Amino acid sequence: MELLNWLNWRYAAKKMNGQTVPQDKLDYILEAARLAPTSSGLQPFQILVVSNKEILAQIRPHAMNQSQVTDCSHLLVFAAWDGYSLERIETVFDQMLAERGLPANTMDDYKKLLWGVYEPLGQAWHINHAARQAYIAASMAMVAAAEVQVDATPMEGFIPAEVDTILDLPNKGLRSVLLLPLGFRDAANDWNVNLKKFRKSKEQLIIEVK
Amino acid sequence: MELLNWLNWRYAAKKMNGQTVPQDKLDYILEAARLAPTSSGLQPFQILVVSNKEILAQIRPHAMNQSQVTDCSHLLVFAAWDGYSLERIETVFDQMLAERGLPANTMDDYKKLLWGVYEPLGQAWHINHAARQAYIAASMAMVAAAEVQVDATPMEGFIPAEVDTILDLPNKGLRSVLLLPLGFRDAANDWNVNLKKFRKSKEQLIIEVK
Repeated sequence: MELLNWLNWRYAAKKMNGQTVPQDKLDYILEAARLAPTSSGLQPFQILVVSNKEILAQIRPHAMNQSQVTDCSHLLVFAAWDGYSLERIETVFDQMLAERGLPANTMDDYKKLLWGVYEPLGQAWHINHAARQAYIAASMAMVAAAEVQVDATPMEGFIPAEVDTILDLPNKGLRSVLLLPLGFRDAANDWNVNLKKFRKSKEQLIIEVK
Repeated sequence: MELLNWLNWRYAAKKMNGQTVPQDKLDYILEAARLAPTSSGLQPFQILVVSNKEILAQIRPHAMNQSQVTDCSHLLVFAAWDGYSLERIETVFDQMLAERGLPANTMDDYKKLLWGVYEPLGQAWHINHAARQAYIAASMAMVAAAEVQVDATPMEGFIPAEVDTILDLPNKGLRSVLLLPLGFRDAANDWNVNLKKFRKSKEQLIIEVK
Protein backbone atom coordinates (compact mmCIF):
# COMPACT_ATOMS: atom_id res chain seq x y z
CA MET A 1 0.00 0.00 0.00
CA GLU A 2 2.70 2.41 -1.09
CA LEU A 3 0.72 4.83 -3.23
CA LEU A 4 -1.30 6.27 -0.35
CA ASN A 5 1.92 6.89 1.58
CA TRP A 6 3.33 8.82 -1.37
CA LEU A 7 0.12 10.82 -1.88
CA ASN A 8 0.12 11.74 1.80
CA TRP A 9 3.81 12.72 1.66
CA ARG A 10 3.43 14.97 -1.35
CA TYR A 11 2.02 18.51 -1.29
CA ALA A 12 2.25 21.54 -3.54
CA ALA A 13 5.60 23.01 -2.50
CA LYS A 14 5.38 26.79 -2.78
CA LYS A 15 8.99 27.42 -1.82
CA MET A 16 11.80 25.31 -3.21
CA ASN A 17 15.45 25.43 -2.19
CA GLY A 18 17.19 25.47 -5.55
CA GLN A 19 18.85 22.06 -5.20
CA THR A 20 19.23 19.98 -8.33
CA VAL A 21 17.19 16.82 -8.83
CA PRO A 22 19.65 14.01 -9.67
CA GLN A 23 19.48 12.76 -13.26
CA ASP A 24 18.33 9.25 -12.30
CA LYS A 25 15.34 10.63 -10.41
CA LEU A 26 14.48 13.01 -13.24
CA ASP A 27 14.67 10.13 -15.71
CA TYR A 28 12.40 8.04 -13.48
CA ILE A 29 9.78 10.77 -13.33
CA LEU A 30 9.84 11.28 -17.11
CA GLU A 31 9.62 7.54 -17.72
CA ALA A 32 6.44 7.36 -15.62
CA ALA A 33 4.95 10.18 -17.71
CA ARG A 34 5.96 8.34 -20.88
CA LEU A 35 4.20 5.15 -19.74
CA ALA A 36 0.92 6.95 -18.93
CA PRO A 37 -2.09 5.57 -20.80
CA THR A 38 -3.73 7.93 -23.28
CA SER A 39 -6.77 7.83 -25.55
CA SER A 40 -6.14 5.45 -28.46
CA GLY A 41 -2.48 5.52 -27.43
CA LEU A 42 -1.86 8.79 -29.26
CA GLN A 43 0.12 10.55 -26.50
CA PRO A 44 -0.96 13.89 -28.01
CA PHE A 45 1.53 16.06 -26.17
CA GLN A 46 5.20 16.68 -25.53
CA ILE A 47 6.97 17.46 -22.30
CA LEU A 48 9.53 20.24 -22.18
CA VAL A 49 12.16 19.89 -19.48
CA VAL A 50 13.39 23.41 -18.81
CA SER A 51 16.50 23.84 -16.68
CA ASN A 52 17.90 26.93 -18.42
CA LYS A 53 17.91 29.60 -15.71
CA GLU A 54 17.42 32.50 -18.11
CA ILE A 55 14.37 30.91 -19.66
CA LEU A 56 12.94 30.09 -16.23
CA ALA A 57 13.39 33.73 -15.29
CA GLN A 58 11.52 34.74 -18.44
CA ILE A 59 8.63 32.41 -17.61
CA ARG A 60 8.25 33.41 -13.95
CA PRO A 61 6.49 36.79 -14.43
CA HIS A 62 3.91 35.04 -16.62
CA ALA A 63 3.26 32.50 -13.85
CA MET A 64 2.04 34.95 -11.22
CA ASN A 65 5.66 35.48 -10.25
CA GLN A 66 5.65 32.26 -8.23
CA SER A 67 9.11 31.51 -6.88
CA GLN A 68 9.08 27.78 -7.55
CA VAL A 69 9.43 28.55 -11.27
CA THR A 70 12.98 29.75 -10.68
CA ASP A 71 13.79 27.85 -7.45
CA CYS A 72 12.94 24.49 -8.95
CA SER A 73 15.53 22.18 -10.42
CA HIS A 74 13.63 21.45 -13.63
CA LEU A 75 10.36 22.88 -14.87
CA LEU A 76 8.24 20.35 -16.74
CA VAL A 77 5.98 22.06 -19.25
CA PHE A 78 3.21 19.78 -20.46
CA ALA A 79 2.32 20.94 -23.95
CA ALA A 80 -0.67 19.47 -25.75
CA TRP A 81 -1.02 19.13 -29.50
CA ASP A 82 -2.71 22.22 -30.93
CA GLY A 83 -5.12 19.96 -32.80
CA TYR A 84 -5.55 16.45 -34.11
CA SER A 85 -5.04 15.70 -37.79
CA LEU A 86 -5.27 12.57 -39.87
CA GLU A 87 -1.54 12.87 -40.47
CA ARG A 88 -0.71 13.05 -36.75
CA ILE A 89 -2.93 10.06 -36.01
CA GLU A 90 -1.47 8.04 -38.90
CA THR A 91 2.09 8.76 -37.84
CA VAL A 92 1.46 7.30 -34.39
CA PHE A 93 -0.48 4.28 -35.62
CA ASP A 94 2.14 3.51 -38.29
CA GLN A 95 4.85 3.46 -35.63
CA MET A 96 2.66 1.39 -33.28
CA LEU A 97 2.00 -1.24 -35.96
CA ALA A 98 5.64 -1.36 -37.02
CA GLU A 99 6.81 -1.92 -33.44
CA ARG A 100 4.18 -4.62 -32.96
CA GLY A 101 5.15 -6.33 -36.20
CA LEU A 102 1.64 -6.01 -37.62
CA PRO A 103 0.67 -5.20 -41.22
CA ALA A 104 0.60 -1.46 -41.93
CA ASN A 105 -3.09 -1.53 -42.92
CA THR A 106 -4.28 -3.24 -39.70
CA MET A 107 -5.75 -0.08 -38.20
CA ASP A 108 -7.08 1.56 -41.37
CA ASP A 109 -10.70 1.18 -40.30
CA TYR A 110 -10.03 2.43 -36.79
CA LYS A 111 -8.02 5.35 -38.16
CA LYS A 112 -10.97 6.44 -40.30
CA LEU A 113 -13.44 5.90 -37.45
CA LEU A 114 -11.35 7.99 -35.06
CA TRP A 115 -10.75 10.84 -37.48
CA GLY A 116 -14.43 10.74 -38.43
CA VAL A 117 -15.22 11.41 -34.77
CA TYR A 118 -12.46 13.95 -34.10
CA GLU A 119 -12.55 16.09 -37.26
CA PRO A 120 -16.03 17.64 -36.80
CA LEU A 121 -15.40 18.40 -33.12
CA GLY A 122 -13.03 21.21 -34.03
CA GLN A 123 -9.77 22.61 -32.71
CA ALA A 124 -10.98 23.86 -29.30
CA TRP A 125 -12.29 20.38 -28.49
CA HIS A 126 -9.06 18.83 -29.83
CA ILE A 127 -6.88 20.94 -27.57
CA ASN A 128 -9.02 20.20 -24.53
CA HIS A 129 -8.99 16.50 -25.30
CA ALA A 130 -5.23 16.46 -25.81
CA ALA A 131 -4.82 18.45 -22.59
CA ARG A 132 -6.73 15.81 -20.63
CA GLN A 133 -4.32 13.17 -21.89
CA ALA A 134 -1.42 15.39 -20.85
CA TYR A 135 -2.95 15.59 -17.37
CA ILE A 136 -2.80 11.80 -17.07
CA ALA A 137 0.91 11.93 -17.89
CA ALA A 138 1.44 14.80 -15.45
CA SER A 139 -0.35 12.78 -12.77
CA MET A 140 1.99 9.86 -13.33
CA ALA A 141 4.93 12.26 -13.07
CA MET A 142 3.56 13.55 -9.74
CA VAL A 143 3.28 10.01 -8.35
CA ALA A 144 6.78 9.12 -9.55
CA ALA A 145 8.19 12.28 -8.01
CA ALA A 146 6.58 11.45 -4.67
CA GLU A 147 7.96 7.92 -4.83
CA VAL A 148 11.51 9.23 -5.18
CA GLN A 149 10.84 12.06 -2.72
CA VAL A 150 11.10 14.88 -5.17
CA ASP A 151 8.63 17.73 -4.75
CA ALA A 152 6.38 18.53 -7.68
CA THR A 153 3.93 21.44 -7.75
CA PRO A 154 1.23 21.36 -10.42
CA MET A 155 0.57 24.92 -11.64
CA GLU A 156 -2.22 26.24 -13.83
CA GLY A 157 -1.79 29.87 -12.84
CA PHE A 158 0.19 31.05 -15.84
CA ILE A 159 -0.49 32.73 -19.17
CA PRO A 160 -0.22 29.96 -21.77
CA ALA A 161 0.25 32.29 -24.75
CA GLU A 162 3.29 33.92 -23.12
CA VAL A 163 4.88 30.61 -22.14
CA ASP A 164 4.17 29.28 -25.62
CA THR A 165 6.01 32.19 -27.18
CA ILE A 166 9.03 31.87 -24.89
CA LEU A 167 9.34 28.16 -25.69
CA ASP A 168 8.50 28.53 -29.41
CA LEU A 169 5.58 26.12 -28.97
CA PRO A 170 3.40 27.40 -31.85
CA ASN A 171 6.10 26.35 -34.30
CA LYS A 172 6.08 22.90 -32.73
CA GLY A 173 2.27 22.57 -33.00
CA LEU A 174 1.92 22.66 -29.22
CA ARG A 175 0.13 24.62 -26.47
CA SER A 176 1.27 24.71 -22.84
CA VAL A 177 -1.41 23.33 -20.51
CA LEU A 178 0.29 22.61 -17.18
CA LEU A 179 3.55 23.51 -15.43
CA LEU A 180 5.16 21.07 -13.02
CA PRO A 181 8.27 22.40 -11.26
CA LEU A 182 10.42 19.64 -9.77
CA GLY A 183 12.73 20.29 -6.87
CA PHE A 184 13.04 20.15 -3.13
CA ARG A 185 10.92 21.92 -0.54
CA ASP A 186 12.41 24.75 1.50
CA ALA A 187 10.41 23.67 4.54
CA ALA A 188 11.58 26.53 6.77
CA ASN A 189 10.20 29.11 4.33
CA ASP A 190 7.14 27.42 2.85
CA TRP A 191 3.80 28.58 4.28
CA ASN A 192 2.11 25.56 2.72
CA VAL A 193 4.20 22.78 4.22
CA ASN A 194 2.58 22.59 7.65
CA LEU A 195 -1.03 23.16 6.62
CA LYS A 196 -3.15 20.07 7.23
CA LYS A 197 -3.91 18.33 3.94
CA PHE A 198 -7.54 19.03 3.15
CA ARG A 199 -9.70 16.72 1.10
CA LYS A 200 -13.46 16.26 0.99
CA SER A 201 -14.70 13.19 2.83
CA LYS A 202 -15.40 9.94 1.06
CA GLU A 203 -19.09 10.57 1.69
CA GLN A 204 -18.88 13.93 -0.08
CA LEU A 205 -16.97 12.65 -3.08
CA ILE A 206 -18.38 9.18 -3.74
CA ILE A 207 -21.90 8.25 -4.86
CA GLU A 208 -22.69 4.54 -4.71
CA VAL A 209 -25.16 3.13 -7.22
CA LYS A 210 -25.82 -0.40 -6.00
CA MET B 1 10.91 1.82 -8.04
CA GLU B 2 7.44 0.35 -7.80
CA LEU B 3 5.44 2.71 -9.95
CA LEU B 4 7.10 1.71 -13.22
CA ASN B 5 6.39 -1.96 -12.43
CA TRP B 6 2.72 -1.15 -11.92
CA LEU B 7 2.52 0.94 -15.09
CA ASN B 8 4.10 -1.89 -17.06
CA TRP B 9 1.73 -4.45 -15.50
CA ARG B 10 -1.40 -2.49 -16.30
CA TYR B 11 -3.09 -2.30 -19.69
CA ALA B 12 -6.58 -1.44 -20.93
CA ALA B 13 -8.42 -4.72 -20.35
CA LYS B 14 -11.00 -5.12 -23.09
CA LYS B 15 -12.47 -8.35 -21.73
CA MET B 16 -13.12 -8.80 -18.03
CA ASN B 17 -14.22 -12.01 -16.30
CA GLY B 18 -17.04 -10.75 -14.11
CA GLN B 19 -15.30 -11.43 -10.78
CA THR B 20 -15.95 -9.00 -7.94
CA VAL B 21 -13.24 -6.64 -6.72
CA PRO B 22 -12.95 -7.11 -2.93
CA GLN B 23 -14.20 -4.19 -0.87
CA ASP B 24 -10.78 -3.40 0.63
CA LYS B 25 -9.23 -3.04 -2.82
CA LEU B 26 -12.13 -0.91 -4.04
CA ASP B 27 -11.78 1.32 -0.98
CA TYR B 28 -8.04 1.64 -1.63
CA ILE B 29 -8.61 2.73 -5.22
CA LEU B 30 -11.22 5.31 -4.21
CA GLU B 31 -9.01 6.64 -1.44
CA ALA B 32 -6.22 7.29 -3.95
CA ALA B 33 -8.68 9.22 -6.13
CA ARG B 34 -9.79 11.19 -3.07
CA LEU B 35 -6.20 12.17 -2.26
CA ALA B 36 -5.47 13.43 -5.79
CA PRO B 37 -4.34 17.05 -5.94
CA THR B 38 -6.66 19.46 -7.75
CA SER B 39 -6.61 23.12 -8.70
CA SER B 40 -7.05 25.27 -5.56
CA GLY B 41 -8.09 22.08 -3.76
CA LEU B 42 -11.64 22.33 -5.12
CA GLN B 43 -12.04 18.66 -6.18
CA PRO B 44 -14.68 19.81 -8.68
CA PHE B 45 -16.14 16.37 -9.41
CA GLN B 46 -17.80 13.36 -7.88
CA ILE B 47 -17.18 9.70 -8.52
CA LEU B 48 -20.10 7.35 -9.04
CA VAL B 49 -19.41 3.73 -8.17
CA VAL B 50 -21.90 1.73 -10.19
CA SER B 51 -22.32 -1.96 -9.40
CA ASN B 52 -26.03 -2.27 -10.16
CA LYS B 53 -26.19 -4.76 -13.04
CA GLU B 54 -29.34 -3.30 -14.57
CA ILE B 55 -27.86 0.16 -14.71
CA LEU B 56 -24.61 -1.17 -16.18
CA ALA B 57 -26.68 -2.89 -18.87
CA GLN B 58 -28.40 0.42 -19.61
CA ILE B 59 -25.07 2.22 -19.95
CA ARG B 60 -23.37 -0.35 -22.19
CA PRO B 61 -25.15 0.49 -25.49
CA HIS B 62 -24.12 4.13 -25.00
CA ALA B 63 -20.50 3.08 -24.55
CA MET B 64 -20.00 1.51 -27.97
CA ASN B 65 -21.40 -1.71 -26.52
CA GLN B 66 -18.04 -2.49 -24.94
CA SER B 67 -18.26 -5.61 -22.80
CA GLN B 68 -16.17 -4.36 -19.90
CA VAL B 69 -19.05 -2.08 -18.92
CA THR B 70 -21.09 -5.12 -17.88
CA ASP B 71 -18.24 -7.59 -17.18
CA CYS B 72 -16.53 -5.27 -14.72
CA SER B 73 -17.02 -5.48 -10.99
CA HIS B 74 -17.61 -1.76 -10.47
CA LEU B 75 -17.85 1.02 -13.02
CA LEU B 76 -16.34 4.29 -11.80
CA VAL B 77 -17.97 7.26 -13.50
CA PHE B 78 -15.95 10.43 -13.10
CA ALA B 79 -18.44 13.28 -13.22
CA ALA B 80 -17.19 16.87 -13.33
CA TRP B 81 -19.05 19.87 -11.95
CA ASP B 82 -21.21 21.40 -14.69
CA GLY B 83 -19.78 24.79 -13.85
CA TYR B 84 -18.02 26.74 -11.11
CA SER B 85 -19.94 29.18 -8.97
CA LEU B 86 -18.99 31.45 -6.12
CA GLU B 87 -21.22 29.32 -3.89
CA ARG B 88 -19.48 26.08 -4.83
CA ILE B 89 -16.06 27.65 -4.28
CA GLU B 90 -17.09 29.13 -0.92
CA THR B 91 -18.53 25.85 0.31
CA VAL B 92 -15.19 24.09 -0.24
CA PHE B 93 -13.06 26.89 1.19
CA ASP B 94 -15.30 27.19 4.26
CA GLN B 95 -14.88 23.49 4.99
CA MET B 96 -11.13 23.69 4.34
CA LEU B 97 -10.68 26.58 6.77
CA ALA B 98 -12.86 24.94 9.43
CA GLU B 99 -10.85 21.71 9.24
CA ARG B 100 -7.60 23.65 9.42
CA GLY B 101 -8.84 25.66 12.40
CA LEU B 102 -8.34 28.95 10.56
CA PRO B 103 -10.60 32.03 10.69
CA ALA B 104 -13.49 31.84 8.21
CA ASN B 105 -12.39 35.01 6.41
CA THR B 106 -8.79 33.84 5.80
CA MET B 107 -9.37 33.12 2.11
CA ASP B 108 -11.76 35.93 1.23
CA ASP B 109 -9.27 37.67 -1.04
CA TYR B 110 -8.29 34.45 -2.78
CA LYS B 111 -11.95 33.51 -3.19
CA LYS B 112 -12.63 36.80 -4.98
CA LEU B 113 -9.48 36.50 -7.06
CA LEU B 114 -10.36 32.98 -8.17
CA TRP B 115 -13.98 33.73 -9.01
CA GLY B 116 -12.86 36.88 -10.80
CA VAL B 117 -10.75 34.66 -13.05
CA TYR B 118 -13.27 31.82 -13.47
CA GLU B 119 -16.54 33.70 -13.94
CA PRO B 120 -15.76 35.39 -17.29
CA LEU B 121 -14.34 32.18 -18.75
CA GLY B 122 -17.81 30.67 -19.03
CA GLN B 123 -19.39 27.29 -18.56
CA ALA B 124 -17.67 25.40 -21.38
CA TRP B 125 -14.28 26.41 -19.95
CA HIS B 126 -15.47 25.51 -16.43
CA ILE B 127 -16.51 22.01 -17.44
CA ASN B 128 -13.24 21.41 -19.28
CA HIS B 129 -11.24 22.68 -16.34
CA ALA B 130 -13.19 20.54 -13.87
CA ALA B 131 -12.78 17.55 -16.19
CA ARG B 132 -8.99 17.98 -16.14
CA GLN B 133 -9.06 17.79 -12.35
CA ALA B 134 -11.20 14.65 -12.58
CA TYR B 135 -8.57 13.14 -14.87
CA ILE B 136 -5.94 13.59 -12.16
CA ALA B 137 -8.17 11.68 -9.74
CA ALA B 138 -8.85 9.00 -12.36
CA SER B 139 -5.09 8.68 -12.92
CA MET B 140 -4.53 8.10 -9.22
CA ALA B 141 -7.28 5.47 -9.28
CA MET B 142 -5.53 3.76 -12.20
CA VAL B 143 -2.23 3.65 -10.33
CA ALA B 144 -3.91 2.35 -7.16
CA ALA B 145 -5.72 -0.33 -9.14
CA ALA B 146 -2.45 -1.47 -10.69
CA GLU B 147 -0.79 -1.57 -7.28
CA VAL B 148 -3.45 -3.97 -5.96
CA GLN B 149 -3.57 -5.86 -9.27
CA VAL B 150 -7.04 -4.83 -10.27
CA ASP B 151 -7.60 -4.07 -13.95
CA ALA B 152 -8.88 -0.61 -14.84
CA THR B 153 -9.76 0.48 -18.36
CA PRO B 154 -10.11 4.22 -18.98
CA MET B 155 -12.92 4.81 -21.50
CA GLU B 156 -13.87 7.98 -23.34
CA GLY B 157 -15.89 6.25 -26.04
CA PHE B 158 -19.35 6.85 -24.65
CA ILE B 159 -22.18 9.36 -25.06
CA PRO B 160 -22.01 11.60 -21.99
CA ALA B 161 -25.56 12.96 -22.33
CA GLU B 162 -27.00 9.43 -22.27
CA VAL B 163 -24.92 8.34 -19.29
CA ASP B 164 -25.81 11.58 -17.52
CA THR B 165 -29.51 10.89 -17.94
CA ILE B 166 -29.23 7.28 -16.73
CA LEU B 167 -27.40 8.41 -13.59
CA ASP B 168 -29.48 11.56 -13.04
CA LEU B 169 -26.33 13.68 -13.21
CA PRO B 170 -27.94 16.95 -14.43
CA ASN B 171 -29.91 17.10 -11.17
CA LYS B 172 -26.64 16.68 -9.27
CA GLY B 173 -24.90 19.47 -11.20
CA LEU B 174 -22.53 16.98 -12.84
CA ARG B 175 -21.41 15.81 -16.29
CA SER B 176 -19.80 12.44 -16.95
CA VAL B 177 -16.29 12.81 -18.41
CA LEU B 178 -14.58 9.43 -18.04
CA LEU B 179 -15.58 5.83 -17.35
CA LEU B 180 -13.23 3.51 -15.49
CA PRO B 181 -14.44 -0.07 -15.22
CA LEU B 182 -12.66 -2.02 -12.47
CA GLY B 183 -12.38 -5.77 -12.58
CA PHE B 184 -10.18 -8.65 -13.63
CA ARG B 185 -8.88 -9.45 -17.07
CA ASP B 186 -10.20 -12.47 -18.92
CA ALA B 187 -6.80 -13.12 -20.44
CA ALA B 188 -7.87 -16.07 -22.59
CA ASN B 189 -10.42 -13.93 -24.41
CA ASP B 190 -8.82 -10.48 -24.49
CA TRP B 191 -7.26 -9.50 -27.83
CA ASN B 192 -5.44 -6.65 -26.12
CA VAL B 193 -3.62 -8.56 -23.39
CA ASN B 194 -0.72 -9.91 -25.45
CA LEU B 195 -0.10 -6.88 -27.64
CA LYS B 196 3.26 -5.30 -26.93
CA LYS B 197 2.80 -2.08 -24.96
CA PHE B 198 3.46 0.78 -27.36
CA ARG B 199 4.73 4.15 -26.27
CA LYS B 200 6.65 6.83 -28.15
CA SER B 201 10.33 6.96 -27.35
CA LYS B 202 11.75 9.34 -24.82
CA GLU B 203 13.36 11.22 -27.71
CA GLN B 204 9.96 11.69 -29.36
CA LEU B 205 8.18 12.82 -26.23
CA ILE B 206 10.71 14.92 -24.35
CA ILE B 207 12.23 18.26 -25.38
CA GLU B 208 15.14 19.43 -23.24
CA VAL B 209 15.68 23.16 -22.81
CA LYS B 210 19.05 23.41 -21.09
